[in-house]
Amino acid sequence: MGSLYGSLVVPRSRSCGRVFVVVVFCCLSFLIGSSLGSKARHFKWEAEYMFWSPDCIEHVVMGINGQFPGPTIRATAGDTIVVELTNKLHTEGVVIHWHGIRQFGTPWADGTASISQCVINPGETFVYRFKVDKAGTYFYHGHYGMQRSAGLYGSLIVDLAEGEKEPFHYDGEFNLLLSDWWHQGAHEQEVALSSNPFRWIGEPQALLINGKGQYNCSLAAHFSNSSSILCKLRGNEQCAPQIMHVLPNKTYRLRVTSTTALASLNLAIGNHKMVVVEADGNYVQPFAVNDMDIYSGESYSVLITTDQDPSMNYWVSISVRGRLPKTPQGLTILNYHPTSGSKLPTLPPPVSPLWNDYAHSKSFSNKILALMGSAKPPTNYHRRITLLNTQNKINGFTKWSINNISLALPATPYLGSIKYGLKNAFDHQSPPENFPEYYDVMKPPVNPNSTQGSGVYMLGLNSTVDVILQNANALDANVSEIHPWHLHGHDFWVLGYGEGRFSKKDEKKLNLKNPPLRNTAVIFPYGWTALRFVADNPGVWAFHCHIEPHLHMGMGVVFAEGVQYLKKIPRDALACGLTGKLFMNNKN
Amino acid sequence: MGSLYGSLVVPRSRSCGRVFVVVVFCCLSFLIGSSLGSKARHFKWEAEYMFWSPDCIEHVVMGINGQFPGPTIRATAGDTIVVELTNKLHTEGVVIHWHGIRQFGTPWADGTASISQCVINPGETFVYRFKVDKAGTYFYHGHYGMQRSAGLYGSLIVDLAEGEKEPFHYDGEFNLLLSDWWHQGAHEQEVALSSNPFRWIGEPQALLINGKGQYNCSLAAHFSNSSSILCKLRGNEQCAPQIMHVLPNKTYRLRVTSTTALASLNLAIGNHKMVVVEADGNYVQPFAVNDMDIYSGESYSVLITTDQDPSMNYWVSISVRGRLPKTPQGLTILNYHPTSGSKLPTLPPPVSPLWNDYAHSKSFSNKILALMGSAKPPTNYHRRITLLNTQNKINGFTKWSINNISLALPATPYLGSIKYGLKNAFDHQSPPENFPEYYDVMKPPVNPNSTQGSGVYMLGLNSTVDVILQNANALDANVSEIHPWHLHGHDFWVLGYGEGRFSKKDEKKLNLKNPPLRNTAVIFPYGWTALRFVADNPGVWAFHCHIEPHLHMGMGVVFAEGVQYLKKIPRDALACGLTGKLFMNNKN
Repeated sequence: MGSLYGSLVVPRSRSCGRVFVVVVFCCLSFLIGSSLGSKARHFKWEAEYMFWSPDCIEHVVMGINGQFPGPTIRATAGDTIVVELTNKLHTEGVVIHWHGIRQFGTPWADGTASISQCVINPGETFVYRFKVDKAGTYFYHGHYGMQRSAGLYGSLIVDLAEGEKEPFHYDGEFNLLLSDWWHQGAHEQEVALSSNPFRWIGEPQALLINGKGQYNCSLAAHFSNSSSILCKLRGNEQCAPQIMHVLPNKTYRLRVTSTTALASLNLAIGNHKMVVVEADGNYVQPFAVNDMDIYSGESYSVLITTDQDPSMNYWVSISVRGRLPKTPQGLTILNYHPTSGSKLPTLPPPVSPLWNDYAHSKSFSNKILALMGSAKPPTNYHRRITLLNTQNKINGFTKWSINNISLALPATPYLGSIKYGLKNAFDHQSPPENFPEYYDVMKPPVNPNSTQGSGVYMLGLNSTVDVILQNANALDANVSEIHPWHLHGHDFWVLGYGEGRFSKKDEKKLNLKNPPLRNTAVIFPYGWTALRFVADNPGVWAFHCHIEPHLHMGMGVVFAEGVQYLKKIPRDALACGLTGKLFMNNKN
Repeated sequence: MGSLYGSLVVPRSRSCGRVFVVVVFCCLSFLIGSSLGSKARHFKWEAEYMFWSPDCIEHVVMGINGQFPGPTIRATAGDTIVVELTNKLHTEGVVIHWHGIRQFGTPWADGTASISQCVINPGETFVYRFKVDKAGTYFYHGHYGMQRSAGLYGSLIVDLAEGEKEPFHYDGEFNLLLSDWWHQGAHEQEVALSSNPFRWIGEPQALLINGKGQYNCSLAAHFSNSSSILCKLRGNEQCAPQIMHVLPNKTYRLRVTSTTALASLNLAIGNHKMVVVEADGNYVQPFAVNDMDIYSGESYSVLITTDQDPSMNYWVSISVRGRLPKTPQGLTILNYHPTSGSKLPTLPPPVSPLWNDYAHSKSFSNKILALMGSAKPPTNYHRRITLLNTQNKINGFTKWSINNISLALPATPYLGSIKYGLKNAFDHQSPPENFPEYYDVMKPPVNPNSTQGSGVYMLGLNSTVDVILQNANALDANVSEIHPWHLHGHDFWVLGYGEGRFSKKDEKKLNLKNPPLRNTAVIFPYGWTALRFVADNPGVWAFHCHIEPHLHMGMGVVFAEGVQYLKKIPRDALACGLTGKLFMNNKN
């Protein structure tokens, strides 16, 4: 385990020479009361804008401590992570969400603006303190406006506690944090998406692997019929591909996460099969594939064996799924020792499946099952919530709605307004549990008008909740899109995927035997996805489409459970809006 | 007085069709306790980003209620203005400063982030309530980050109280709000100015008159030797010049304000003399000029008489002063009735003085004297503060410093941290009163290093303060720039301008007889400007270079007086940072 041959991504220092006082007390102090061997890992971070060239074209990027992507956090299960995040932006608030970490007992550290905390204002510092209770591959990212699109993200990897063993063997590992990148700034994207007439942001200019991508050039230019230019392998460290150096006849674990704003991706490695062993921090029954889909918000570990001709190098490629691709493949190189890392592969890059070959995607999703012996879901549910995903118009503005309500986040975080019973902080009517019988999911909405709302699904603590995510036709005829839904604060079991409208007859097809535990699950065009989870984590939790422009357009809901049992919510998490006023007026 | 011939700028509604619920309760309710006839004027404003084409090129602009520039406020002296400002930005805070309004008794309504109040966070509303005690020509603008550069500004015009008479006659009036415009967004400008290596934002792409300008075309193309294209007079209402329709043989008052981010301007009207009668809300002894300089932060009223050939139209032009102009003249047309407004003037536009003809500029500034009979300044001062303006390097970052300290605004507004004696909110050492004897203002700094600081000049309440603004050479040899300094909360008397370093011998040249009262005064290259004011307004007040990138780079100081006497500071003005914590912890 661990780095065998220069494999791990080493955060690079900022090239422009600015010196940051980055004090990282790491692996130093034992946490009082935590189990033997677990540690508090301290980080001091500054979120800031900087000029950067993710695809060799310079733009403003949101980074941390002069790095893009932000620093990788590496911890051991049971550790406590302490991130002192200082906002060095000029006029914007900031928060960071720790994607996949369930935040048991620390819902205020979930890093979701308007939900779990007030934003950190410029010049202010907020301390995120939370336990990483489960080994796995995670990441973190901004969860305010479109700051994830702006580049605020990084990796969070949790190793097994000492003495524990993975149910698979590997000799070394790599981290592949996948994202997409626009030349239009995230601020302008926000304005475009909020405009009437609506302005779509279009497809990304580049796909990035560990923050590095290619624009207006290709590493595989010599295989192309077009007159594309060969990208340079060296020269600009901000965009030069990170080459994966391997030894022959070893097994490597690739930790793959997607924090794309929009793109669903297909990952392939020329000539190498991938054995999927982990999904979203949970073990899955291993299975081998030639290529794999990964949607925004998902993470996987796959094993590859370097059993190919070591005198050659091989492509690592990502390409767009589910949307007519206008973005070139993102590429880097798997480099066999002792072959030179600058030797381009002699074979063309992997051909990705047709963008709309959903059968291929579904086949992959259906292969993901819990590792034998994993905990099974409860047999019965207490409550089933069906969530219809539709695209709508509200006063002429294009929105996404769930059961005809487009989520409009309130100024006061729900965690505080629910805890303190504030009546005017959000809509107190519970959102609908279902959608009308007569609604035809295969057609554009007959009445596309819907409303904005901020209601909350209040869940019984420790109740078992089923969610049926129901896809539908968008505003235009014959259009239904992919939406990867991500749940905060919990993992859920993915009980199954189906076509058309979910109905009674689908009930018996649900997999209660070995469904995978995940935190993100996709709905396919015109399909449904069935999830089950236990509402066992007191707090308020976002559940939303992980496509950032879709969330910005209202595609999400809010769950809350057991908030009344929470004690000692740090006041500085709620020092804004109506909770701020409440605290100031000494009425509690 | 008032509109004679369609002269006033009518705020246009947003063309994109979005309907705002703008409730303006205007001229309705008498303010309890205010003098008879004075009113409370209520406005509901939403600050937001929107696509707009100030120079016919579309970019993101910060507007209010769908308008750019923001709505004009028109009030009567003695009125109370009540603006409920809701932040509709996605991730940014916002404040609005009411430039020229002294805010007697309401320092928390001055609208300066970090100084007078906490920023209004997205989704939140703050109520600005303040009295406009003095008739005059004012404006308002953002005072956070570079939101003024982003377009957050508008006009504020205060008419004389009923029964009062202006000391001059006019038949109609026009409002000319002048600004400059970049195609690079304000966010990116902030990042550029904060980068190491430093990136200067360059010259503006267009000069705007009432938010409308020309780019890559000229209204006077037919007079040009180059192959410039004639701009359209109609078609795009966002950028089409606002033509000034006049009747022959009348006198018009032009209310001219400059809210430029950078540019110093020269205004001229072909064939028409201008008689200057007001500066920054104070009457001046009338004098006639062919052209006039106006610096960012200044306002003037000038009278023109329409005594020219009514069968022709005439140019109204603004052009850049004090910097090698790379921005074309901004133009509009003075249209004599009954001549068609689309008839272009037959003469070429006014030729502006050479950009570096500072003698011309100084001559204009020196003509500005108080109207005979105006209040005189106190004969003696209690304290004299000399402020050296230098350009510096701090850890490689390019900054502007005052007496070797570059202003770094704290997260907690001074108004709260001084009132509540918070020790860690800002630097408690008073900044220097002067700069070393040996410093040579004619040369680049020998040691360009300086420090960032947040100290405050604590002024004795009702004391008379003299400020000597001392210009110097910037980092590069033979460079010294224009800086218009603006004082919040007060008017000051401009006692004089001089060359080189201010010295004892300059003392006797100061004008104590009829110096003009103003809120903004320029320092010329390598020169000094002497000001006097009475610190009679309890509060904390910014005093800074009104060039927004310069302020962003630290070019300002903070004055405070009599804060201990303030009662009832609205808590929602201070519900952030350390005052927010203090209020929450119930320790006061």
